[in-house]
Amino acid sequence: MIELKIYFVTGNRNKFREGASILKKYGVVLKMYRTDKVEIQSNSLRQIVKYALQSLNLDKPFIVEDAGLFIKSLNGFPGPYSKYVYKTIGLNGILKLMQNILNREAYFKSVIGYCEPNGLIKFFEGRVYGYISYKIRGKYGFGYDPIFIPSGLDKTFGEMPMYLKNKYSHRSRAFRKLGKWLRDRS
Amino acid sequence: MIELKIYFVTGNRNKFREGASILKKYGVVLKMYRTDKVEIQSNSLRQIVKYALQSLNLDKPFIVEDAGLFIKSLNGFPGPYSKYVYKTIGLNGILKLMQNILNREAYFKSVIGYCEPNGLIKFFEGRVYGYISYKIRGKYGFGYDPIFIPSGLDKTFGEMPMYLKNKYSHRSRAFRKLGKWLRDRS
Repeated sequence: MIELKIYFVTGNRNKFREGASILKKYGVVLKMYRTDKVEIQSNSLRQIVKYALQSLNLDKPFIVEDAGLFIKSLNGFPGPYSKYVYKTIGLNGILKLMQNILNREAYFKSVIGYCEPNGLIKFFEGRVYGYISYKIRGKYGFGYDPIFIPSGLDKTFGEMPMYLKNKYSHRSRAFRKLGKWLRDRS
Repeated sequence: MIELKIYFVTGNRNKFREGASILKKYGVVLKMYRTDKVEIQSNSLRQIVKYALQSLNLDKPFIVEDAGLFIKSLNGFPGPYSKYVYKTIGLNGILKLMQNILNREAYFKSVIGYCEPNGLIKFFEGRVYGYISYKIRGKYGFGYDPIFIPSGLDKTFGEMPMYLKNKYSHRSRAFRKLGKWLRDRS
């Protein structure tokens, strides 16, 4: 069996570690690859990922991933701009916007785009539904993890070590789909 | 004297009207031109405008404009994503984020990119400094106008008819620079 190796175009070490730990179970080695990609403004993560894939020209199989937190009572905000919103108003800004709002439903969504030098493109999507907490809780994870409680659980992602978060997370679901697909066709 | 005509690639009628009323004073006719342009994610309006210009290929002189509201105490939020933020959390969301915040300084910034079929590209920037109001005030304008008070005045842009807003606004300042430049070289 040949070892399958794919490249993850990202500057985010946390995302990379999550993805690598899942793909390993499918016999796939994930490598981090730092290079500039074009991120467009769009309400569709898939469109953002698609454009980014097409802006890159690598001579090996690679993936791009984009994710966002979509809060129902805020009309999907921060959505595709989750990173920018995190850097500016942060978790406290989100909690302030959610003050006195009873409907705290939200979901995380991750879209992975896979591309091969022959031009093949495939997308894999993962979601996790849950709630926005009332306080920042936990020291694990990154981004919005400390304010997101997956449905049916009583801990935020920030209160779960990676192995536990990876059971439920949007990104792990997308990576498992990718892993299965790669394994099944090899 | 030949009439100078340029095309404004936008789907926003409000922006178009503001620009046309200013350029007219410089003998320039502005036409609205609807077509898809690529908007990238960037903290720099100029980079966004530059990429959009380069994504278009018109056989006549045209402009692209992008603008944003930058609130100091929110680290520049909503900035380049002002439109998305307006559509999701809206003016009430901004006012909620500004609750109990005494420093209400903010500025609007507009960047116009001008492009000719020969490849010439020029940028024109306008800013207006001011404050975020405590309430939504006024029925004029669009976007964040009803919560922005320009420095030295006691009215929001939403309380000013267009001719008055155009004395102070970021966009009018950028359009006047463009108008002068076009007139002086013709």
